[in-house]
Amino acid sequence: MWGGRFAEGPSAIMREINASIPFDKALWRQDIAASKAHVAMLGACGIVSDADAVTIRDGLDAVAAEYEVSGVPEDWDLEDIHMTTESRLAQLIGPAAGRLHTARSRNDQVATDFRLWVRDAMDQADAGLQALQVALVTRAGEHAGSIMPGFTHLQTAQPVTLGHHLMAYYEMIGRDRSRFADARKRMNRSPLGSAALAGTGFPIDRLMTAQALGFDGPTDNSLDSVSDRDFALDYLMAASQCALHLSRLAEEFIIWASQPFGFVALPDALSTGSSIMPQKKNPDAAELVRGHSGRISGCLMSLMMTMKGLPLAYSKDMQDDKPPVFEAAGLLALSIAAMAGMVADTRFKTDRMLAAAELGFATATDLADWLVRQADIPFREAHHITGAAVKLAEQRGLPLDQLPLEDLKAIDSRIDERVFKALSVEASVAARNSHGGTAPDQVRLRVADARVSLGLE
Amino acid sequence: MWGGRFAEGPSAIMREINASIPFDKALWRQDIAASKAHVAMLGACGIVSDADAVTIRDGLDAVAAEYEVSGVPEDWDLEDIHMTTESRLAQLIGPAAGRLHTARSRNDQVATDFRLWVRDAMDQADAGLQALQVALVTRAGEHAGSIMPGFTHLQTAQPVTLGHHLMAYYEMIGRDRSRFADARKRMNRSPLGSAALAGTGFPIDRLMTAQALGFDGPTDNSLDSVSDRDFALDYLMAASQCALHLSRLAEEFIIWASQPFGFVALPDALSTGSSIMPQKKNPDAAELVRGHSGRISGCLMSLMMTMKGLPLAYSKDMQDDKPPVFEAAGLLALSIAAMAGMVADTRFKTDRMLAAAELGFATATDLADWLVRQADIPFREAHHITGAAVKLAEQRGLPLDQLPLEDLKAIDSRIDERVFKALSVEASVAARNSHGGTAPDQVRLRVADARVSLGLE
Amino acid sequence: MWGGRFAEGPSAIMREINASIPFDKALWRQDIAASKAHVAMLGACGIVSDADAVTIRDGLDAVAAEYEVSGVPEDWDLEDIHMTTESRLAQLIGPAAGRLHTARSRNDQVATDFRLWVRDAMDQADAGLQALQVALVTRAGEHAGSIMPGFTHLQTAQPVTLGHHLMAYYEMIGRDRSRFADARKRMNRSPLGSAALAGTGFPIDRLMTAQALGFDGPTDNSLDSVSDRDFALDYLMAASQCALHLSRLAEEFIIWASQPFGFVALPDALSTGSSIMPQKKNPDAAELVRGHSGRISGCLMSLMMTMKGLPLAYSKDMQDDKPPVFEAAGLLALSIAAMAGMVADTRFKTDRMLAAAELGFATATDLADWLVRQADIPFREAHHITGAAVKLAEQRGLPLDQLPLEDLKAIDSRIDERVFKALSVEASVAARNSHGGTAPDQVRLRVADARVSLGLE
Amino acid sequence: MWGGRFAEGPSAIMREINASIPFDKALWRQDIAASKAHVAMLGACGIVSDADAVTIRDGLDAVAAEYEVSGVPEDWDLEDIHMTTESRLAQLIGPAAGRLHTARSRNDQVATDFRLWVRDAMDQADAGLQALQVALVTRAGEHAGSIMPGFTHLQTAQPVTLGHHLMAYYEMIGRDRSRFADARKRMNRSPLGSAALAGTGFPIDRLMTAQALGFDGPTDNSLDSVSDRDFALDYLMAASQCALHLSRLAEEFIIWASQPFGFVALPDALSTGSSIMPQKKNPDAAELVRGHSGRISGCLMSLMMTMKGLPLAYSKDMQDDKPPVFEAAGLLALSIAAMAGMVADTRFKTDRMLAAAELGFATATDLADWLVRQADIPFREAHHITGAAVKLAEQRGLPLDQLPLEDLKAIDSRIDERVFKALSVEASVAARNSHGGTAPDQVRLRVADARVSLGLE
Repeated sequence: MWGGRFAEGPSAIMREINASIPFDKALWRQDIAASKAHVAMLGACGIVSDADAVTIRDGLDAVAAEYEVSGVPEDWDLEDIHMTTESRLAQLIGPAAGRLHTARSRNDQVATDFRLWVRDAMDQADAGLQALQVALVTRAGEHAGSIMPGFTHLQTAQPVTLGHHLMAYYEMIGRDRSRFADARKRMNRSPLGSAALAGTGFPIDRLMTAQALGFDGPTDNSLDSVSDRDFALDYLMAASQCALHLSRLAEEFIIWASQPFGFVALPDALSTGSSIMPQKKNPDAAELVRGHSGRISGCLMSLMMTMKGLPLAYSKDMQDDKPPVFEAAGLLALSIAAMAGMVADTRFKTDRMLAAAELGFATATDLADWLVRQADIPFREAHHITGAAVKLAEQRGLPLDQLPLEDLKAIDSRIDERVFKALSVEASVAARNSHGGTAPDQVRLRVADARVSLGLE
Repeated sequence: MWGGRFAEGPSAIMREINASIPFDKALWRQDIAASKAHVAMLGACGIVSDADAVTIRDGLDAVAAEYEVSGVPEDWDLEDIHMTTESRLAQLIGPAAGRLHTARSRNDQVATDFRLWVRDAMDQADAGLQALQVALVTRAGEHAGSIMPGFTHLQTAQPVTLGHHLMAYYEMIGRDRSRFADARKRMNRSPLGSAALAGTGFPIDRLMTAQALGFDGPTDNSLDSVSDRDFALDYLMAASQCALHLSRLAEEFIIWASQPFGFVALPDALSTGSSIMPQKKNPDAAELVRGHSGRISGCLMSLMMTMKGLPLAYSKDMQDDKPPVFEAAGLLALSIAAMAGMVADTRFKTDRMLAAAELGFATATDLADWLVRQADIPFREAHHITGAAVKLAEQRGLPLDQLPLEDLKAIDSRIDERVFKALSVEASVAARNSHGGTAPDQVRLRVADARVSLGLE
Repeated sequence: MWGGRFAEGPSAIMREINASIPFDKALWRQDIAASKAHVAMLGACGIVSDADAVTIRDGLDAVAAEYEVSGVPEDWDLEDIHMTTESRLAQLIGPAAGRLHTARSRNDQVATDFRLWVRDAMDQADAGLQALQVALVTRAGEHAGSIMPGFTHLQTAQPVTLGHHLMAYYEMIGRDRSRFADARKRMNRSPLGSAALAGTGFPIDRLMTAQALGFDGPTDNSLDSVSDRDFALDYLMAASQCALHLSRLAEEFIIWASQPFGFVALPDALSTGSSIMPQKKNPDAAELVRGHSGRISGCLMSLMMTMKGLPLAYSKDMQDDKPPVFEAAGLLALSIAAMAGMVADTRFKTDRMLAAAELGFATATDLADWLVRQADIPFREAHHITGAAVKLAEQRGLPLDQLPLEDLKAIDSRIDERVFKALSVEASVAARNSHGGTAPDQVRLRVADARVSLGLE
Repeated sequence: MWGGRFAEGPSAIMREINASIPFDKALWRQDIAASKAHVAMLGACGIVSDADAVTIRDGLDAVAAEYEVSGVPEDWDLEDIHMTTESRLAQLIGPAAGRLHTARSRNDQVATDFRLWVRDAMDQADAGLQALQVALVTRAGEHAGSIMPGFTHLQTAQPVTLGHHLMAYYEMIGRDRSRFADARKRMNRSPLGSAALAGTGFPIDRLMTAQALGFDGPTDNSLDSVSDRDFALDYLMAASQCALHLSRLAEEFIIWASQPFGFVALPDALSTGSSIMPQKKNPDAAELVRGHSGRISGCLMSLMMTMKGLPLAYSKDMQDDKPPVFEAAGLLALSIAAMAGMVADTRFKTDRMLAAAELGFATATDLADWLVRQADIPFREAHHITGAAVKLAEQRGLPLDQLPLEDLKAIDSRIDERVFKALSVEASVAARNSHGGTAPDQVRLRVADARVSLGLE
């Protein structure tokens, strides 16, 4: 009946579906660290003898040294990293190993290990994002005055500066970092000592283990502690949001690298060729970053759905928490690094950008604004007058600032020769000097602030 | 070719697909408030005359008064709440209305309006969650000593107290509140004055409008400001996580209300009957809360996918930000209120809970722990001895604490009569007095802390 | 405690969370039709008298006539469309109305109504998609020979024809139609008569009601019939896949409409202007179609998550099946219509497309292929030789087919003057005449086949 | 700047983000098969010499033999399975290997390989689901007459038979199989020969390769062929729907295995113990199946989001198609096998089920139906009378069929002693003999039909 892979029947299925060691071995450092903190506390509280505590600690160090050299053995019958480590410990130190599991359970053990792993992943994301911010402000500083078309609806809208555009991503990444920081703070409590679900009768000191593992303190409810995967979801939510930001930047690089745009020459190191078309230079890294945003969001959806409707306390479904987090963390680290490299090493073709900014009547708003200011007419009316001017320029095939003055005057007599000063792309960007605007001076201010925040000054 | 609804062809399609007024009219209060802040600033900065500023402000008040009484008219040709309001303003005050749109665009306008709406939704969620926490601690206080079976894998695991169980949800809801609070802080910056995408050349004072609208200050990059929907995603992420918590509590109430469990009698007001089975009393509200977690998570997925890969700055896709947020906010408010009602008014059948706790050998761990402490044997060995005792009890059809001492001694001679004191469910819960454990004294401590946090003491 | 909206407490919450009439009134036609089929069967089987059957039927027609004129009244206390209709029926015809609910339950009633609604939505999607296919083949026929750059990675890859490109979407939409057709076939069984969950003891004739409602027959298991929402998920899956296809086409139109590309002038009727930038013509409809793919996928995720882990039979969570389906169906109908209009009415700027195809060394593969054929060298070697030619052309700033023959010979002596015939974009596309290739002749064949399939010839 | 893993900078990042060989090596059998079909066709069409065709074929067999023995080497610089194989082929047979890539590209190559893989996965799912259906009908046949409570809202509703309940899942699984079958049929067209995106100028025979690989024919549009991932999404949609069904069955086993229900003793082989609670027998396999439905749905969401808005033709984002499909296929195969094992080997505690069915007034509907039939009163009125009887029985603490006749008569004088025959759970299930109803005779009919469909008779 079972056929093929599961010819042995249910026990073969169970071995495979139940074993988490293929993926939770990634937790080995955290598992050893938590066990060492636990046994030190058991010793300090007199729950195990000092001699046993030392024996166990040294044994754990020996297991860790083996793992470091040879990796974690993958024996499905030992199910998970906890049993794998305890089993090896017992081989090394004998029955004393059996005292390590006093006053704890795999339920609080895995909650602690995984929390430590996720905390590290948050710290790594933050470090990567800081590097990306450094790349962004560096290039933004170089291009505070480089003019490009600003788009809305991917239509040329108003001229902006490249530096301003890059600093938009500095802002997004800043929010991403704050999201990881908030999540880290919220999760930094130790579940260790919650035992299976109800706490323990042994006189343990949860503050001691919490501090040893860098937590701000112990959690306050043991049922919650073994049932809670908020920290993993918080990580995935922050990662998904970050990946969305990166997908937007990636999309821009891909569009900018297309022949009709030609705004950028992407770094060779982050591009590939084609197996059939010798002329191709493909923005593979950017495309993969864009694609990875789908996978990272899929990881979030996965864990949200898995957690839906689970009664307290621990249910085995929660074992499905790790693969999506591990996958997302790997994809996110790569995505951040790839975009940092892309920002740092892309050659911006500022001449193509400037030329594009001068097409498309990008300074039409400046004409409308000029009318409001010079002629004190309501913006809505100015907008209509400008519409007529754009229509004329389109018919003539001329940029706005090359329309003859008399033609403009024919549209509205209040227009005079001063208008032409407002209609160059340089004047347009320089004028937008309100807080957060695209004027080169504004961008330089923002870059300077950012460099201070990043510790670059 | 177009047939049916779209017989007029593309223009009919466009009118329908483009119009956001059917849903964004929900933003009218925010739109009026932001316009009033904007025009006050335009007046203060001399961009419009004081007289015009007053006229516009009074006109906006008049429009608001009409909306309050008669609702917002839904004219698809006016597309959205911004044009609807400005159009009505122009009818009321004439051409001066055209000055309101100076130095702003619909892009920063909608970013401001929606941010204000989401901020309110966050505040409302927090208020609802506080009420739910009050219900939880109140009932937890009543049941700090009520014993029920604690489950893992929905199998009887160890006895816990009902108060402890309810306080697990207090913790979850606390994290939800902190998530909303973090999101609120992160988003509380004003995009107003970012204009279409590049800022404006008018000498505006963005700090002034920010303060008038309760923001901590203006945003720092105009491109980001009109392209950013992080605040909506942050809301949806916090709402989804919260809905998952509520789905877990709902699942428990549903299971507990089943005849075989019989742990609770749900409030009549939150149950319904059947159109065909007269004896039924269905936990409809709990089921809907559980179901709503799917819909709220779907709203998150919707906006994540919509935002994926959008180049800067504003794209019309972003108009799809509002329906999922509005839907999620409505469902979340109802879900929170329903669960608060359920917690407050459910009758817990503590006798059924206690009886269930006494089945299933829930104190087996206590036997193992007793062996560790009394006989100083490693936990792993104690676990094996206990397994033998459970097996015997199962064969005899007896609870653990009614096994004859000689039978226990036959399993392990180190067991003596003192063991029986450890094997009652009362002794079991009382023993788990470690920080965060289920002992009634611990629960009372946690409830007392919580009551202080909630301002109840 | 309840504050604000729910000041009355749980009963106010319940009325709001429980009422489905605000959305399920959309099912009124289906509800009336199913009730008429049911009562006709009850009469035919002698379960109600003929007189009662006629009275009820006429009463249902009267209710329907009222709904047609005045809409369905929304009384939350009547909960849903079923109770609303039965209640009105009782007002019109008296106690006989109470016989209608014999041998059925709201559980099979709503399963029937909703299935009928979804079946209609599938038929409407199919009709819309057929119209879109007609637009695609029509424009493909016009542009079977129009040359444009074919992209991979959004990099110019090889020249293709616009007709070929449009026919790619014809294929996708064909798969969408087949997906809806498969789903329709799978779901076309009648659940009516399954009653609450267990079937009924009345001697009903389920085949009769099935046939009256256009079903292929009755379902085979009553528990499944009231618990099954596969048909709704099948609809959402087909809709999501279709929306993804439309999002791709929309993305292309948006990119093509950008100034640097300039491949298309979108229909005015499907574009909008800007409130601040008078020169803008924005591809709003395409952007909304792209955005809607997120929302439709969100609807799928919503219902998947809601259905996860529900035990048999009916649970109230299932009431959350309708809002996502209704939302998705509305968005999909609009999206299909908008893209059909866009395809039909867009002006393709074939000169710009051709010019773009001639840049970017798009015929490099043709050089490699020529080398394979003329000089019988392995493709991999030909690929390398071509790479050198492209590099030289890039340095010289020349297209491939304008490199001097001697320079090509210097790269590889086997190249002769015949090569130039292979290097024009026209020759390139004409050569790719394998089945499904881009050659104009191939495209014309495919268009001709498609026109027959669509009944246009 | 790069720190840690990416110390070498962008090239190290690129090697890691770009390499698909770590996962696409799973395609090696398909890649070899497709290459063999391709080269046989190149030979038959005279595009390569017969000698080269044979050399390449034998070389491919040699590579395959190596992979079979030693696995596929993972050299990131060779990027993917295609380059890995071609590179090894070149080592084995020299420059002739370079002729294999004539008239194809990696774009159509991977589309072919992956399609073949997914087709196999569909066939494997079908085989697994058939085995699950066999288990279901076998146990349903055993328990066609075993009575249990039927639930709606997890409240006891009406008595049903266990066989009927199991057959509900037979129906669901049948729909799953039909969904996979539809998807298989839709996707069974060969993209091979579509080359990079535009087809090829070589005189290839796409029908020949299609037939060699078991496809129904070639695809009709080369751009679509390399851009299409519908087949992967169709697989994931069918898998997600199937996983949802399994999650429902898993939820039921989990609830039924709880101590308060006690309806089942799950197979030891599919349960586990606890590291701390010696008495536990946990339904781990069922919980993992329930959890996996989240992960499988997450895989669907992942690919949907990745495909959103991708312009034609191939983009590198599509490389993110394989990990979610591979992951989902592995999880689904395990989930199906686990549930088949669970269904086959679970011990149903029919005495506990029957006892539960006799509580909860499950035959109240039968009283109402009896009143309709005997006394010819409208169902609504009968429903009210029955409500009164249930209320009385509740007060007396008696089941409905033990209420004294006089008490029933006091409620409604039309009740007589014949009613008691209708109120036993046996009579209740026997009565529901309408098509698809729960009556044992009905169930036996359905089981007999199913056994024929499955080829068991």
